[in-house]
Amino acid sequence: MPFVTVQIGKGHSIEKKRKLVQAVTDALVSALGTKPEWITVHIDEFERDNWAVGGVLHSDKHTGRHEETGR
Amino acid sequence: MPFVTVQIGKGHSIEKKRKLVQAVTDALVSALGTKPEWITVHIDEFERDNWAVGGVLHSDKHTGRHEETGR
Amino acid sequence: MPFVTVQIGKGHSIEKKRKLVQAVTDALVSALGTKPEWITVHIDEFERDNWAVGGVLHSDKHTGRHEETGR
Amino acid sequence: MPFVTVQIGKGHSIEKKRKLVQAVTDALVSALGTKPEWITVHIDEFERDNWAVGGVLHSDKHTGRHEETGR
Amino acid sequence: MPFVTVQIGKGHSIEKKRKLVQAVTDALVSALGTKPEWITVHIDEFERDNWAVGGVLHSDKHTGRHEETGR
Amino acid sequence: MPFVTVQIGKGHSIEKKRKLVQAVTDALVSALGTKPEWITVHIDEFERDNWAVGGVLHSDKHTGRHEETGR
Repeated sequence: MPFVTVQIGKGHSIEKKRKLVQAVTDALVSALGTKPEWITVHIDEFERDNWAVGGVLHSDKHTGRHEETGR
Repeated sequence: MPFVTVQIGKGHSIEKKRKLVQAVTDALVSALGTKPEWITVHIDEFERDNWAVGGVLHSDKHTGRHEETGR
Repeated sequence: MPFVTVQIGKGHSIEKKRKLVQAVTDALVSALGTKPEWITVHIDEFERDNWAVGGVLHSDKHTGRHEETGR
Repeated sequence: MPFVTVQIGKGHSIEKKRKLVQAVTDALVSALGTKPEWITVHIDEFERDNWAVGGVLHSDKHTGRHEETGR
Repeated sequence: MPFVTVQIGKGHSIEKKRKLVQAVTDALVSALGTKPEWITVHIDEFERDNWAVGGVLHSDKHTGRHEETGR
Repeated sequence: MPFVTVQIGKGHSIEKKRKLVQAVTDALVSALGTKPEWITVHIDEFERDNWAVGGVLHSDKHTGRHEETGR
């Protein structure tokens, strides 16, 4: 504990994942004073056609603009 | 999107929660290049006697040392 | 199965919860052809100061306008 | 907010997913009065051999009857 | 890791919770050969009026028969 | 209800999954007195590079020692 789940779109590089888990771990260390080795981060990736806002699937809104938008 | 869930023990002050959500949001902005307004952070607090490691409840291990440990 | 989790702000009346679980169950029956008795709906309520968008806690943005906005 | 997660078996067509997210979004609009653009729906698909009721895996109970049953 | 979440109705005694986390931990040790100290169990309790099957809230179905049924 | 989610690394055999869901179901029957047919178990598998402890991805720590460690 603490246990962090980050839900993001599929397709981020391993490099970005390394940065993400390190940055999120540092965030909890700085905000809560938690020891890094107590912090678990789980990246939960989803497919573009499994996520919707306002009743419309992401895949129907977005075509191939993923990397720059960082979603 | 992205959507972040942070599971931590109950009892953190509102001040610490403000720091936590800001730090986690900044972490995703720096690591993924996501716009802050796209990032949702949910703090999921749990009771000491609802969490166990190695088959032993937290409440049976820890008595009142919460704030300093940041768990 | 299917299993639906609806995360909403705390404070909705029992009447609204009855309408919510019935409407969500009907939605899955109409969209997937699932039998109602196979559908489980879990309402996961959160506190205003445990939810943030853009790094700012809900409780710091919203003061007592909950019921009309339906969040 | 609100944030809805729908856990269903893998294999539903994109057409059914479109109907599902629209129907679930409409359900929350009608029951809670929420604006559609505030509602996020996440379809969390699982494999047949990762789900069990009564200690028996789905894949051991069900062989290829998925589409009609809507699970 | 592994990380186990057990969603059950509110109201189980601390004694039952101790038995539950020990039994679930033992189950993973026997089935997967995992070391106990690697296993985290989180008990996620829910209110009777936040859970529905077939579109009907638990609280509307069940009145005070919780302990014997073990739900 | 109850509903159990077990998050483990990808790669466990179907045989191990059968043992896991049976053992977890038995654990809840013995600890809570719940009827087996009321218990749902969901195995949520994750990729090695989607899980981190102490800011370091599992895939960067572990190379192909998965089966014996049971993680």
